[in-house]
Amino acid sequence: MEPWQLTAAAAAARLREGTLTAEALTRSCLARIAERDPVTKAWSYLDPMLAIRSAREVDKATVRGVLHGIPLGVKDMIDTADMPTTHNSPIYQGLQQGRDAACVGIARGEGAVILGKTDTVEFASGGRRALTRNPHDPARTPGGSSSGSAAAVADGMVPLAFGTQTGGSTIRPASFCGVYAMKPTHGVVNSEGAKRYSHTLDTIGWYGRAPADLRLVAEAFRLFDIETPDGKPRGKTVQQLRIGICHGPNWHLASEEAQNALLLAGKRLEAAGAIVEELSLPQPFEGITEAQRIVLLGEGRGAFLQEYLAAHGKLHADFRDRVENFANITGSQMAGAYNLAGDCRKLFDALFPRFDAILTPAAAGEAPLGRQDTGNPVFNSMWTLLHVPCIAIPCTKGPHGMPVGVQIVGPRFGDAALLDVAAVVAPVIDAE
Amino acid sequence: MEPWQLTAAAAAARLREGTLTAEALTRSCLARIAERDPVTKAWSYLDPMLAIRSAREVDKATVRGVLHGIPLGVKDMIDTADMPTTHNSPIYQGLQQGRDAACVGIARGEGAVILGKTDTVEFASGGRRALTRNPHDPARTPGGSSSGSAAAVADGMVPLAFGTQTGGSTIRPASFCGVYAMKPTHGVVNSEGAKRYSHTLDTIGWYGRAPADLRLVAEAFRLFDIETPDGKPRGKTVQQLRIGICHGPNWHLASEEAQNALLLAGKRLEAAGAIVEELSLPQPFEGITEAQRIVLLGEGRGAFLQEYLAAHGKLHADFRDRVENFANITGSQMAGAYNLAGDCRKLFDALFPRFDAILTPAAAGEAPLGRQDTGNPVFNSMWTLLHVPCIAIPCTKGPHGMPVGVQIVGPRFGDAALLDVAAVVAPVIDAE
Repeated sequence: MEPWQLTAAAAAARLREGTLTAEALTRSCLARIAERDPVTKAWSYLDPMLAIRSAREVDKATVRGVLHGIPLGVKDMIDTADMPTTHNSPIYQGLQQGRDAACVGIARGEGAVILGKTDTVEFASGGRRALTRNPHDPARTPGGSSSGSAAAVADGMVPLAFGTQTGGSTIRPASFCGVYAMKPTHGVVNSEGAKRYSHTLDTIGWYGRAPADLRLVAEAFRLFDIETPDGKPRGKTVQQLRIGICHGPNWHLASEEAQNALLLAGKRLEAAGAIVEELSLPQPFEGITEAQRIVLLGEGRGAFLQEYLAAHGKLHADFRDRVENFANITGSQMAGAYNLAGDCRKLFDALFPRFDAILTPAAAGEAPLGRQDTGNPVFNSMWTLLHVPCIAIPCTKGPHGMPVGVQIVGPRFGDAALLDVAAVVAPVIDAE
Repeated sequence: MEPWQLTAAAAAARLREGTLTAEALTRSCLARIAERDPVTKAWSYLDPMLAIRSAREVDKATVRGVLHGIPLGVKDMIDTADMPTTHNSPIYQGLQQGRDAACVGIARGEGAVILGKTDTVEFASGGRRALTRNPHDPARTPGGSSSGSAAAVADGMVPLAFGTQTGGSTIRPASFCGVYAMKPTHGVVNSEGAKRYSHTLDTIGWYGRAPADLRLVAEAFRLFDIETPDGKPRGKTVQQLRIGICHGPNWHLASEEAQNALLLAGKRLEAAGAIVEELSLPQPFEGITEAQRIVLLGEGRGAFLQEYLAAHGKLHADFRDRVENFANITGSQMAGAYNLAGDCRKLFDALFPRFDAILTPAAAGEAPLGRQDTGNPVFNSMWTLLHVPCIAIPCTKGPHGMPVGVQIVGPRFGDAALLDVAAVVAPVIDAE
């Protein structure tokens, strides 16, 4: 087994034992990238010598953080002090910030090796797509906007990567690429230094190849209640779990394979002894998808005004429309959308502790063909607006042999408990 | 009259007419700074030649923005691509970012001359204080955390300056220094590139010496409904206004001079023909001050984790305590505080259009003596959590001859209407 094949959690254990070095793991990832990236095109910036120097620095460190020696890919709209951050925009080619984004600085502080920058949809939003292809079929999208991060982890090029989610930009690509991902409770991970799109929605997320990988990153960010004094998960067994299956207000937009994946995940959990119940969301949730759209467009007005004034001609028409409020969003619509979101957050949190987690689609189906259509975020955007933690879990394959995942969702600030549930349900759901 | 004595709005008119150049105005401000800053110490970074070069660039511009030629001070925790941003932290001395903060980029895009960086409380939060002194009495604080910005505008050193408000960091210093200030609706001005403290609270604000100065900046940010096709305010006359006087849940913390200022402002408005009514906030507001404290401390955990890991010894104990959750804030307290804030936002917005604006204290009293105590933010923090627009208006003097202001407050997204009200009530309230 080559080091690049290790999950982050398995590699972390070897690095702790001293049977693997950060440099050896980094070199193995670089070799895998050299082999695979001409097709997958996950990376928008990669300086192998810089990565090896960073790994050697980590190998010299006397204090070992929770991410000690683990290579990490960073979505190219998150600032890095030692690499450019282009946002996949012609405006920012070659731009280099003076300091790391908060999430990058924290990962470095915990010993991660920042491997390189991964390609993204322009400003993690619209406009130009990433060049990245799905590792399972290069004719298909890996999803977006965290295209490169999801594909790089799925393709064995790096064990961990940062994405962001404003609509469905972290969880959906995980489903398309057959990997694990976490979008934590909004605001618990400082998103400073990731390009602003919508302050109410923008959330740093991360990819791994096992639930334990996701936990490592959650530990680095010191999420509420994440400390496990004995180092072991504190969760229930699968037989003690009560899972709510939630079709949500957009079930009619789920393809057959997405519907099947949800039913299959539920059946597998039931067969393993969990209590699985259908869950209907109360009436206000009928408006939640529209509320997310209003917040996204309304907050987008101010998010791209700087670029609109400084580099109008280089700014994609998608963003010019937002600044000019093409959608005619009013302040009163904004306040209404915020109010509805607040109401739904309270209603959703109140489902716990009746349930341990909610099981719901991670994407509308298999990854679409081509590069332009990065998939429908409709099965993610409501959870982003609700600010709740979400974990993507691979489940099955669709009619074209492409991965189809599901996600589990918890209440706000229930990130640690949701990781406990993921550790128990993932081997049951991800069973192919 | 020297150009530095002009309000931003008056200077903008002369710049438009061509009777004043950006360079002449900038040189006049620099001369005033040279005279006054050895005492006031408002500026943490100032390169006169850079400022003059920037002014000459503006004088060459063919397109004229709404801030054309107006010098602007920038709080030293807001990024500038051509000047360092220290956050008044020993960690970031000399740090220079690759791009402007969004608010700085937008101001530049609209023709402002970025004059220099103004001193701030460390990370706009706690720890080290600014060196700045109150222009009305150098033995007293100008308030914080936007210490240098408020003092610079009050002292005639610059017509406009950016601050930020997370508790009371924009409005309170305005009251202490006897100037105008605006804290807009949360989120309508992109705060990207200003150091994160609390994503729910952090708001870019600005200082000027007249209500029309505040409007200029609001126009640059294209706030909702700010466009006035004929260029004239669309507001009511003072006789058509209905103003709610609000003591708020912390009235017992207002000094005699703060209580007097509020009563005086109300009487002046009544004498001018406005309808002025006492307003009691509903019961949930009793918890709003505590909710703001929980949000501030809970979100502070993640805000300073990067610095905690990278430069533990250089990080003030205030911030280490936050990262270590010294206050023992729980996720469930956080969700409760968010829920209460959401409820109160709905209740507050529902007061409009019954009222045109709410009149309430801007600070607990006169500026305290010394540099350490920058004043109590308790008359600001609830409005910051409510996300509503606030405008500080000078009113009277306290027992030590120091300025004491009041503020008017509107509903979320009512920024433009609140500016209309300010234009009408300011000459009545600010009458000494």
